[in-house]
Amino acid sequence: MAHSIGIDIGGTNTDMGLIDENGHIVARRNLPTNKYTDFELYISDLARELKAMIAESGAEIDGIGIGAPNGNFYTGCVDNAPNLTIKGNLNFEQALGHYFNVPVVLSNDANAAAYGEYVYGGARGMKHFIMFTLGTGVGSGIVVDGVLVHGSTGAAGELGHSILIPDGRPCSCGRSGCLEAYTSARGIVQTYCELYREAVGTDPEGEITSKLIGIKAHNGDPIAIETWRLTGHWLGIAMANAVNFSAPEAIFLMGGPAQVGEPLLEPLQQSFNEHTLSIFKGTCQLLMSQLKANEVAILGAAALVKMKVKK
Amino acid sequence: MAHSIGIDIGGTNTDMGLIDENGHIVARRNLPTNKYTDFELYISDLARELKAMIAESGAEIDGIGIGAPNGNFYTGCVDNAPNLTIKGNLNFEQALGHYFNVPVVLSNDANAAAYGEYVYGGARGMKHFIMFTLGTGVGSGIVVDGVLVHGSTGAAGELGHSILIPDGRPCSCGRSGCLEAYTSARGIVQTYCELYREAVGTDPEGEITSKLIGIKAHNGDPIAIETWRLTGHWLGIAMANAVNFSAPEAIFLMGGPAQVGEPLLEPLQQSFNEHTLSIFKGTCQLLMSQLKANEVAILGAAALVKMKVKK
Repeated sequence: MAHSIGIDIGGTNTDMGLIDENGHIVARRNLPTNKYTDFELYISDLARELKAMIAESGAEIDGIGIGAPNGNFYTGCVDNAPNLTIKGNLNFEQALGHYFNVPVVLSNDANAAAYGEYVYGGARGMKHFIMFTLGTGVGSGIVVDGVLVHGSTGAAGELGHSILIPDGRPCSCGRSGCLEAYTSARGIVQTYCELYREAVGTDPEGEITSKLIGIKAHNGDPIAIETWRLTGHWLGIAMANAVNFSAPEAIFLMGGPAQVGEPLLEPLQQSFNEHTLSIFKGTCQLLMSQLKANEVAILGAAALVKMKVKK
Repeated sequence: MAHSIGIDIGGTNTDMGLIDENGHIVARRNLPTNKYTDFELYISDLARELKAMIAESGAEIDGIGIGAPNGNFYTGCVDNAPNLTIKGNLNFEQALGHYFNVPVVLSNDANAAAYGEYVYGGARGMKHFIMFTLGTGVGSGIVVDGVLVHGSTGAAGELGHSILIPDGRPCSCGRSGCLEAYTSARGIVQTYCELYREAVGTDPEGEITSKLIGIKAHNGDPIAIETWRLTGHWLGIAMANAVNFSAPEAIFLMGGPAQVGEPLLEPLQQSFNEHTLSIFKGTCQLLMSQLKANEVAILGAAALVKMKVKK
């Protein structure tokens, strides 16, 4: 059976994986994205690494899937991703297509993660679900009737930038009150610092990260516990709102901050139940991604190859 | 060419229409829904009227489409619609299917309106759009990749009950802060009364309706103008949020309160522009429904017959 290639393009590293038909990563390689400013050189090195990985395995390849920030499914381009050292409108589909005689499919990283869950993870067999990814930002990928929603522009599924609280916190996107401003790693740190200042009267000492706030919560720190309660409260509203759109069977959650577990998941489930419209109550499960944190990006990218959608 | 039947089931009246292939209503009839408490009797009278209308026209029929509050596409049932005198779980698809040898398709009224716009109105040729209907409530219908989104339950597309302002105004659904609590006819009246009390110190005299507030705005009443400005502001946020989901080509607006025109549409467009995420700016038009107010419900219902979707 043919294998697929999955490529996860991050600002620091480009991770490559060779995935067999059962969703197992049988080989991995990587390339330091941030060493490059020239797109052609980067693509040529990327192609060389891929060809070496394929040759070593002796596998046949059915396609190459790429997940990237700002990746556009329709154009095959990454458009001015702020965290890449290679600037401009990068047509990965075309550039990599020169080196390989198989389909090259590109989407944004959260869409890829959602599709990975669909092909290889906990969403197998589902027709309607939504994936929320918590990290530096808040991403989402939406599957409706078994098809990843790309919309008219190729960039649909940006629930992290739905306005949760009008005129609320400034968001990195330049607007105010987005979900991302509250439930990204940065938003969680901001909540903690605000609560700390309110309770203690000074800024907290040392570097505060969402991971540290997780450890503090598990150690019983009331400010950290309240931080996660608020995060779950906000995320639960956003998820309940998303249900109104596509009535999914499940909403999946993944990403670093979600790893904290109970301190987030309990208030999240409670808020979700409380804010779900009555006709949808009990129809949509909240689930954690079933893919491993260090595999989901590559599996998601490889899953794009399985997408049977005309552009 | 075959004609289609469209049925709009309202709490007071059941409107029926015979629609030709060009989307013209060539015959209409109606039945007083609120005279009935017995479902079988109602269906038998409805079938008799339909058969008479068909016989009179001599047309061939390719199907019957029904739009109804709480209508569920998958089950063909109307489940406990609060505004119907006929109670219970009403299987229209099965009941009417006994009388006719053509497909019977049912969906909720806002979904039907969206599909009517798609088949007969301004959304012809679009693959991604969303319809917002303002009225007693706020409904919505969503088309993704040319398919009406029904979700896993058959009841997707309830954007009127997305929470716009957490812990905001009480909504008729029992929760707080829904879009409907702000931009339905009732919500608009509430905004006016709140602003009036703030400015004048007493409740406004006489019966206040959204239509009256529209007339007042056109006459230069500053409280009415501010009411519509706020309504547009809120609706613009909700529409910008919806764009994040499915990146539609257009968002359509219809319903009584939308008829006010400029006083709503100008602040709406402004708020929509202001709250749209940068990557979607300029990609989604705000448009008024192109179907006539007194025809959209029947045309939308008839359009459901054209839906080529497996349940």
